[in-house]
Amino acid sequence: MLTAETISVGTELLHGNAVNTNAAFLAREFFKYGYACNAMTVVGDDEKSIKSALAAAAGRSDIIVITGGMGPTPDDITKQTVASFLGLELIDDTATEVHIRQWFSERGLTMEDRDLIQAKVPAGAVILENANGTAPGLIIEKEIEGKAHTFILMPGPPFEMEPMWREQAVSCLKEKNGNVIVSSLVKICGRTEAEVADLVDEFIRGNESGVSVSPHATAGEVQLRITATGESEKQAKKAIKPVVKEIKARLGDSVYTTHEEKSLEEVVVELLLANKLTVTTVESCTGGLLAGRIINVPGVSEIYKAGYITYSNKAKRRIVGVSRKTLDKYGAVSEQAAREMAKGVTGLFKADVAVAVSGNAGPDMSEGKPVGLVYIAVNVAGNITAREYHFNGSRAQIREMSVASALILLRHCVLEYYGKMTFGTEE
Amino acid sequence: MLTAETISVGTELLHGNAVNTNAAFLAREFFKYGYACNAMTVVGDDEKSIKSALAAAAGRSDIIVITGGMGPTPDDITKQTVASFLGLELIDDTATEVHIRQWFSERGLTMEDRDLIQAKVPAGAVILENANGTAPGLIIEKEIEGKAHTFILMPGPPFEMEPMWREQAVSCLKEKNGNVIVSSLVKICGRTEAEVADLVDEFIRGNESGVSVSPHATAGEVQLRITATGESEKQAKKAIKPVVKEIKARLGDSVYTTHEEKSLEEVVVELLLANKLTVTTVESCTGGLLAGRIINVPGVSEIYKAGYITYSNKAKRRIVGVSRKTLDKYGAVSEQAAREMAKGVTGLFKADVAVAVSGNAGPDMSEGKPVGLVYIAVNVAGNITAREYHFNGSRAQIREMSVASALILLRHCVLEYYGKMTFGTEE
Repeated sequence: MLTAETISVGTELLHGNAVNTNAAFLAREFFKYGYACNAMTVVGDDEKSIKSALAAAAGRSDIIVITGGMGPTPDDITKQTVASFLGLELIDDTATEVHIRQWFSERGLTMEDRDLIQAKVPAGAVILENANGTAPGLIIEKEIEGKAHTFILMPGPPFEMEPMWREQAVSCLKEKNGNVIVSSLVKICGRTEAEVADLVDEFIRGNESGVSVSPHATAGEVQLRITATGESEKQAKKAIKPVVKEIKARLGDSVYTTHEEKSLEEVVVELLLANKLTVTTVESCTGGLLAGRIINVPGVSEIYKAGYITYSNKAKRRIVGVSRKTLDKYGAVSEQAAREMAKGVTGLFKADVAVAVSGNAGPDMSEGKPVGLVYIAVNVAGNITAREYHFNGSRAQIREMSVASALILLRHCVLEYYGKMTFGTEE
Repeated sequence: MLTAETISVGTELLHGNAVNTNAAFLAREFFKYGYACNAMTVVGDDEKSIKSALAAAAGRSDIIVITGGMGPTPDDITKQTVASFLGLELIDDTATEVHIRQWFSERGLTMEDRDLIQAKVPAGAVILENANGTAPGLIIEKEIEGKAHTFILMPGPPFEMEPMWREQAVSCLKEKNGNVIVSSLVKICGRTEAEVADLVDEFIRGNESGVSVSPHATAGEVQLRITATGESEKQAKKAIKPVVKEIKARLGDSVYTTHEEKSLEEVVVELLLANKLTVTTVESCTGGLLAGRIINVPGVSEIYKAGYITYSNKAKRRIVGVSRKTLDKYGAVSEQAAREMAKGVTGLFKADVAVAVSGNAGPDMSEGKPVGLVYIAVNVAGNITAREYHFNGSRAQIREMSVASALILLRHCVLEYYGKMTFGTEE
């Protein structure tokens, strides 16, 4: 198995304020294309640190991806340092110079002399054009102590790096690997990682088919990455297909998508759109975060018109008509209150489907109810389903789990009521 | 200046799914106590990788903090690998064994033999008790090639690592540094990083006082970290005090707190609580995220009772009474609509203060309004203030900036109306 690693250059990353999203993005890409990721290193804009990181990386990995420090300012020294480490001269690249001049003139900006530093490239490097900025990417092949290495240098800003990676650099990974790697992602909701692992146990443990299955859990969700290697794309796809099919069969409706980039809220919104169902929300402990997540999907205005935050008991009574009796007898954090919220809200601004959340997100007991106790109710055309949940963690984590669980229960109830059709597990 | 770095051990971190929050936390701590952070490395649970990371780190840093891989399972090999790297024997620690046995019995859990692996420690190590788990932390002092090094090993889960760091490990950093470091954080809202930098320019550029001022910007906010070194805490505090005072004077009400851990929403909620003001929200493009952020503050139920999400024009008309004429003439994304939302919502579920947000978060033009155009209106006892904003970025970024800006305008309007009192810049 070929190995890869990342070096992120930038003193600001060492202050702990910025999150190093580039390393995580690249690590996922390595995994997807069948490379083992050996390490991820962050160093400052400092020659000695960059060189020691390069030496350590070259000692253990075939592919080394370096991001950041590629710009025109004096602290941007990545390219110069890599060239010096590899004993390469920097030469002018005319095509890059043309690109940089054009970039400034198209935007009516004044180019300074120093901007042309970005047109200097190590001799022999393959140049990756930057569609979203001025610093080009570079691929340098170099033998070190008799072993072939590939150094890929890219700009630090993710909106420059990620498209450059996808459109130009990634093909280099695919080629090197000799064999073709095909991978597929199965996204699952409403089951724990342990349940999923049990159901597809022998695939995760691996067999001789060369198809690997690897689980990963996030709030309310589990993802299975299925990867196969073959001499051709056709062969690898052929190997993967029956595994994906079998996993989908075993997990049934729990599989909400096999689209790499599709989120749970997108799938839920698509399901509602396909069934021409409008939806409303009434939230207590999540206080708007459920609506906020649904509304992050563009085009949601077709199906989401209005929602309510009933944080106090008075608001639960007055706005959505939870009865005083229910609140007195069972409390606001109860199945009964959640059911009445889900019932009452549909009368307000008519919606076909309603989701209600009431719970104690902490930090203290409330009305004698423990932290983490949450009730969610979904009303589909008058049929109300309610569930009780027990979550752990901080106030923010309990609220995040509540939002994910509400989306999952919403999806489940709509699928139950309107038939499974093709919405649950679209290809 | 002493130097430090982090090594995070865990194969799961190399898959790019988990975010390495430990490294960011520790980097902020290094900065706070006057250490330069040289590097942050992530490696898998693999002896060779851990040892090469240790060697690289020992070659450049005085303090090396290693997290993760401290548990009882076979893939947890950090402690054993560090001991082998440093040539130390592992010996049984009775106090830790007692702690582990107690941990299991108190929780009614069955201890397995392998759990006692955690009671084996490298000879000569200082042991840090784990109040939230079973694996102890370890501090090992070791000379390598004539130079003193400190290795601090801690468990990977943040809820075990962070309290252990704060309560036990951090004192080691303070001691080593010889000089005492005192630092203070000034949190600023409603000004750009450039504006703040202009106002406190000579402090950021540095002078001979030995007090350093370093800015950092996040969505809608700027933070200034002010750090001073002295022979005693008294001396360092004395050096820092006039600088903090002068910065606060120059920035005035823009300084919302000097409390390290206090968030903007906490300060806004405290301001409302102190003035005994209830607040409500009515949101369009932010769709509940503003309410969601306010409600993340524990104890907010005193002042936040109910809120509304009016995503469609019909909802804006029917729920908060925006006039059809306004929507026809100016559109939903307009100052007029935001004002009417802020006015109408206070009549619904009586609140002293109301915040309304209406904007286009993208991805496409809407009603001829560009992506990123957002209007926010605040109603304080019938006095409505409205502002126009132009944000850049993704749909999620525009919504995040809108929420921050709404909190900032809310704070500003309450301070204006109820007098500055002591709420703006509490000590």
